Amino acid sequence: MGEPWLLTPGPLSTSFAVKSAMLTDLGSWDSDFRAMTAEVRARLVALLGEGGEAYTCVPMQGSGSYCVEAMLGTLVPRAGRALVLANGAYGARAAQMLRVMGRAVVVLDKGDYLPPRGAEVAAILAQDPAISHVVAIHCETSSGILNPLPEIAAAVAGAGRRLLIDSMSAFGAVPVLPAEIAFDALVSSANKCIEGVPGFGFVLVRRAALAEATGNAHALCLDIAAQSAEFERSGQWRFTPPTHAVAAFLQALREHEAEGGVAARGARYAANRDRLVAGMRQMGFETLLSDAWLSPVITTFFCPADPAFVFADFYDRMKAKGFILYPGKLTQVDSFRIGTIGRLDTGVIDAVLAAVRDTLAETGVRGAAPSGAALGERARFLAEVAA
Amino acid sequence: MGEPWLLTPGPLSTSFAVKSAMLTDLGSWDSDFRAMTAEVRARLVALLGEGGEAYTCVPMQGSGSYCVEAMLGTLVPRAGRALVLANGAYGARAAQMLRVMGRAVVVLDKGDYLPPRGAEVAAILAQDPAISHVVAIHCETSSGILNPLPEIAAAVAGAGRRLLIDSMSAFGAVPVLPAEIAFDALVSSANKCIEGVPGFGFVLVRRAALAEATGNAHALCLDIAAQSAEFERSGQWRFTPPTHAVAAFLQALREHEAEGGVAARGARYAANRDRLVAGMRQMGFETLLSDAWLSPVITTFFCPADPAFVFADFYDRMKAKGFILYPGKLTQVDSFRIGTIGRLDTGVIDAVLAAVRDTLAETGVRGAAPSGAALGERARFLAEVAA
Ligand SMILES: Cc1ncc(COP(=O)(O)O)c(C=O)c1O
Ligand SMILES: Cc1ncc(COP(=O)(O)O)c(C=O)c1O
Repeated sequence: MGEPWLLTPGPLSTSFAVKSAMLTDLGSWDSDFRAMTAEVRARLVALLGEGGEAYTCVPMQGSGSYCVEAMLGTLVPRAGRALVLANGAYGARAAQMLRVMGRAVVVLDKGDYLPPRGAEVAAILAQDPAISHVVAIHCETSSGILNPLPEIAAAVAGAGRRLLIDSMSAFGAVPVLPAEIAFDALVSSANKCIEGVPGFGFVLVRRAALAEATGNAHALCLDIAAQSAEFERSGQWRFTPPTHAVAAFLQALREHEAEGGVAARGARYAANRDRLVAGMRQMGFETLLSDAWLSPVITTFFCPADPAFVFADFYDRMKAKGFILYPGKLTQVDSFRIGTIGRLDTGVIDAVLAAVRDTLAETGVRGAAPSGAALGERARFLAEVAA
Repeated sequence: MGEPWLLTPGPLSTSFAVKSAMLTDLGSWDSDFRAMTAEVRARLVALLGEGGEAYTCVPMQGSGSYCVEAMLGTLVPRAGRALVLANGAYGARAAQMLRVMGRAVVVLDKGDYLPPRGAEVAAILAQDPAISHVVAIHCETSSGILNPLPEIAAAVAGAGRRLLIDSMSAFGAVPVLPAEIAFDALVSSANKCIEGVPGFGFVLVRRAALAEATGNAHALCLDIAAQSAEFERSGQWRFTPPTHAVAAFLQALREHEAEGGVAARGARYAANRDRLVAGMRQMGFETLLSDAWLSPVITTFFCPADPAFVFADFYDRMKAKGFILYPGKLTQVDSFRIGTIGRLDTGVIDAVLAAVRDTLAETGVRGAAPSGAALGERARFLAEVAA
């Protein structure tokens, strides 16, 4: 199509078939659309595998954040108390949501890129029996760290508490299996690893947990219990659904299955990430995180210390070559991020690497090595995660 | 395209150019998309005409209801008190939102299709000085009634209170001009009279009112003050925007201007409605409302009294002929509704009328006249609005 590749963690580059599914206007009350909604919901539950029968899928209009807020507001009761495991912007946002809605909240703040570990979660829960729910960010997209969900889930289950997961940027490419980890709900959105377009997200929630949650929600629209009740009653969305985005997402789910499901999707993204990281390191770039903590979703690289490197210029030149980078940066370290999800394969990544190489040459950046300060930061990180 | 026409009040039939604008994946942080957002916001403010400079446009992810709830939660302060003028499902929903968020609310409930009049609003406001805000539904899409906004606005302004308008199904086809009526905010959505696709809505809000509203909102995501602050700061949406729906909407706004703006759009819809109502009456159908209260958006017809008329069957046969009707019905009277908004003209309406005629013939419905009970209901309505 000649349009730029999006190397961002969503919206991302989708297939032409996914976008073409939006060329029809559908009546949102009509049986044809109800059947699409039912298939979307069933396919998402099926991704949970064994034990998935205990869960229902509740799609919600709005961006992913709306779904996180709906999950928290509906499932953390007004008298509940939530522990948020934060190591980046999305954990901080979940905590802020709970504060706005007036729920009691405790935050384990690991800074920008240190993982919350099972043992520290267990210790906090042992000390604070009032904590009813733990909120974990699966892949914290701010740094790209893949948090250790299995050990966190074990700590939460061991203490008899409930786990709520923001798996926005991981679900569909990294398995979240009830047969392996105990959780009450997870949230993700249409425009991440399933490779649909933005417009809605979904909550996969244990039916038994949802049954206890009627009337909890702090906002009429952000109520997954009420939304779920309408799907059960009529097969319809409570309010006008983004019909075109839903049609695109159904096509994306079919393509996800055809590719080989979560395992194959995750393998393609991991291959993208491996090729990217190897190629960038060859040029002298360094990743913020050590390999053990890299997600297949997005990778943070230190900016080169060479003053000839100016990110805004780098961004524009990469865009001119057909690649849109993720312009955000972390608060503490001078860095940038490259996403490896979406309709990309290693052929695209090779072209990205060539474009980076050309851009460095054009702008006279001699070496891509980070500053000593950045490397010190990385050493601190390595020491802390080793401890 | 051979796809059915949507005779519904949104999602509706959009132009092929509008849908084709969704064939590109856009980076939501990129300057190209920021420019599209800026153009959308500016074009919507421009629809307010003279005096529009006092307003800003705050697009919000989610369906129209989310935007209504965000408008109410942000602009009615926690210590405020709202009077909701209800005559159908959307007024009832606005009142319910205020209850969920714990705001004091008074409802003037006019039943399913009687209009709230300026004089009664004035009387309530005179008796209850604690009411800070009045919430009006412009076109109550449940019955299709066009509520008398000018006289309501005059009553509210006369009493020194603030007016919040749900103009979801009217804005873009029925003028709402600050030069003529005083209001603090109005809300509408992408998939109504501007003829975009669903995925987001927008609030047009008086800057001075928004400036007083920081920290009011009951939900982090449903906060138009915070959303507006991010647009002012960075030109970006606070959370991932529905990029494809935004691109489609920008195309829809350009087509709206090319057609001749609000006046021309409203005239086309009114012509559709006039043709539809005349043709249906010719077959013996009767409208719920008298002509003075018909909106150009959607019209409610009584079901024929003839027992051969079964709505579900009528719906299926109309669908087979290429027309999707609005399957909802009012609670009190046996009726159905036909929408006249979207990419439709009187040629399409003629085809609708032919399909209705054929369907009645196929199913052996001899006359389309409503039951005596329904006509009694209508007489009651006429008496009340005349009083
Ligand atoms: C982990 C995580 N949580 C929440 C969000 C918020 O989603 P949205 O931007 O769709 O509101 C994102 C977005 O990238 C995310 O990566
Ligand atoms: C007047 C009015 N208000 C609110 C809504 C709710 O909008 P949505 O269904 O997009 O949530 C509608 C939808 O048709 C409407 O017509």
